[in-house]
Amino acid sequence: MPAHVPKDTDFEGRVRRSFARQGVMETIGAVMTQVAPGEVEIAMPVSAQVGQQHGFVHAGIVATIADSACGYAALTLMPAGTGVLTAEFKINLMAPAAGERLIARGTVVRSGRLLSVAQAEVAAEGDGQRKTVALMTATLVNVEGRDGIAD
Amino acid sequence: MPAHVPKDTDFEGRVRRSFARQGVMETIGAVMTQVAPGEVEIAMPVSAQVGQQHGFVHAGIVATIADSACGYAALTLMPAGTGVLTAEFKINLMAPAAGERLIARGTVVRSGRLLSVAQAEVAAEGDGQRKTVALMTATLVNVEGRDGIAD
Amino acid sequence: MPAHVPKDTDFEGRVRRSFARQGVMETIGAVMTQVAPGEVEIAMPVSAQVGQQHGFVHAGIVATIADSACGYAALTLMPAGTGVLTAEFKINLMAPAAGERLIARGTVVRSGRLLSVAQAEVAAEGDGQRKTVALMTATLVNVEGRDGIAD
Amino acid sequence: MPAHVPKDTDFEGRVRRSFARQGVMETIGAVMTQVAPGEVEIAMPVSAQVGQQHGFVHAGIVATIADSACGYAALTLMPAGTGVLTAEFKINLMAPAAGERLIARGTVVRSGRLLSVAQAEVAAEGDGQRKTVALMTATLVNVEGRDGIAD
Repeated sequence: MPAHVPKDTDFEGRVRRSFARQGVMETIGAVMTQVAPGEVEIAMPVSAQVGQQHGFVHAGIVATIADSACGYAALTLMPAGTGVLTAEFKINLMAPAAGERLIARGTVVRSGRLLSVAQAEVAAEGDGQRKTVALMTATLVNVEGRDGIAD
Repeated sequence: MPAHVPKDTDFEGRVRRSFARQGVMETIGAVMTQVAPGEVEIAMPVSAQVGQQHGFVHAGIVATIADSACGYAALTLMPAGTGVLTAEFKINLMAPAAGERLIARGTVVRSGRLLSVAQAEVAAEGDGQRKTVALMTATLVNVEGRDGIAD
Repeated sequence: MPAHVPKDTDFEGRVRRSFARQGVMETIGAVMTQVAPGEVEIAMPVSAQVGQQHGFVHAGIVATIADSACGYAALTLMPAGTGVLTAEFKINLMAPAAGERLIARGTVVRSGRLLSVAQAEVAAEGDGQRKTVALMTATLVNVEGRDGIAD
Repeated sequence: MPAHVPKDTDFEGRVRRSFARQGVMETIGAVMTQVAPGEVEIAMPVSAQVGQQHGFVHAGIVATIADSACGYAALTLMPAGTGVLTAEFKINLMAPAAGERLIARGTVVRSGRLLSVAQAEVAAEGDGQRKTVALMTATLVNVEGRDGIAD
């Protein structure tokens, strides 16, 4: 894959400001730990507040950080003023999302004129171990000139 | 599709007790509004606490209630002692998840020996209107005799 | 879902002419059996030429007729000169694709400005029985003014 | 990801014999070009016989070789007598499948007791160029002791 060249020199500031407006991230305790052209990493602690019935993190919450990692990875490559919206995603849950914290790393695999495709890997960390627990593939729509969807 | 016949007469109690153990549902304010053989409905209020950067409900939270609706719809048809885990799901976000509340309705389309397949439709309600905002298809694994995964 | 109103009165002719250009359909013996606004049906005989190792129709061939059913269902609602391309699809194979023939019925669930979403159900017929064997959800991109992608 | 250790020393022979029974592969001219533990490669020529209306390879045929690459990659890791069936897959078509030939490379990302997860990348080659045109994620069910589903 070729190295990604951002069209907006302020890509990191833009992505971090947008992430700060995602109310859900505060609710689940997620933070953005890394931003690079075409790549974004989000981390969150494992807790009962985001749990399902067996004590693992709920698949939808795993998807929440994976989806934001994909979307913001795509946004790093957009020109200023262009936002992205998730059209669809698919996620495979391969192991229980347990441990101390989850890390979702999103990577752009195609940045097109209308659509971007990104993938995320979610790993669970705990007891000095790291294990891949989920893989997502997402399709994002680039949105230009629509009120309120700038970033 | 043939009518579904539950193998466990206490299917509703079992599903409701399991749902009550999903900590994330209290965090996002979701409640189980309906349980029938092969069908489950979950509702949640729209709020900034589950929002993304444009004020809509985050795609991952839409997926959270859709996934639980699918999983519990599948669980209504399992014998006592058999649980279900999500192997994977795919969701299409077709319109912004805005309004007053979201309703996810999950329906079993196949209940097999090892795997179940369920679909969910998520609708947004507000101002007396109702609009389909997302469609999910999920694959669930039936889990028998594994400690801690009973329901 | 509201009734679909085609923007091109010749939608059926356009869809049938385009289908006739899909060389793969002749290769696998598939025919278009029905065209209506937002709905298309494609049928094909089950044969060893499209089989996998156990004698069932290969999942990719099941996907081939389901994808065309989705794409052409979306095309029935496009204005003249606008084509559609599949951005992605997901298919669940719920039962072996066996019997005498397969029928894929594609239905539009959202027809937007840039993207369409369609779903297909594939049924297997044989011995006077009919069984759903697969469900697909597809995202299509509307393509306007690009050479060679008119229909 | 840890290196994969096959449980059946004849994994390559088993996979190649099974592939030879997939009638569809002869129909579309596909051949198995590589077999290694957890990895399989399949190649096919681009031709009008597998084309869609614009002359590209039909998305369903791209999916056909990607699905077999995923399934056989999973089968390399199964004990003798255990087969795999595709439960579901999702594919993103990122560029037109054109050129001289397509190469699908399938890789196992998780090999579990009941389910395997594999991913495939499909590249188009032509004019000395190579371009990724599609990405698939597939869920496979391990099938043991069912008549006719041995490999």
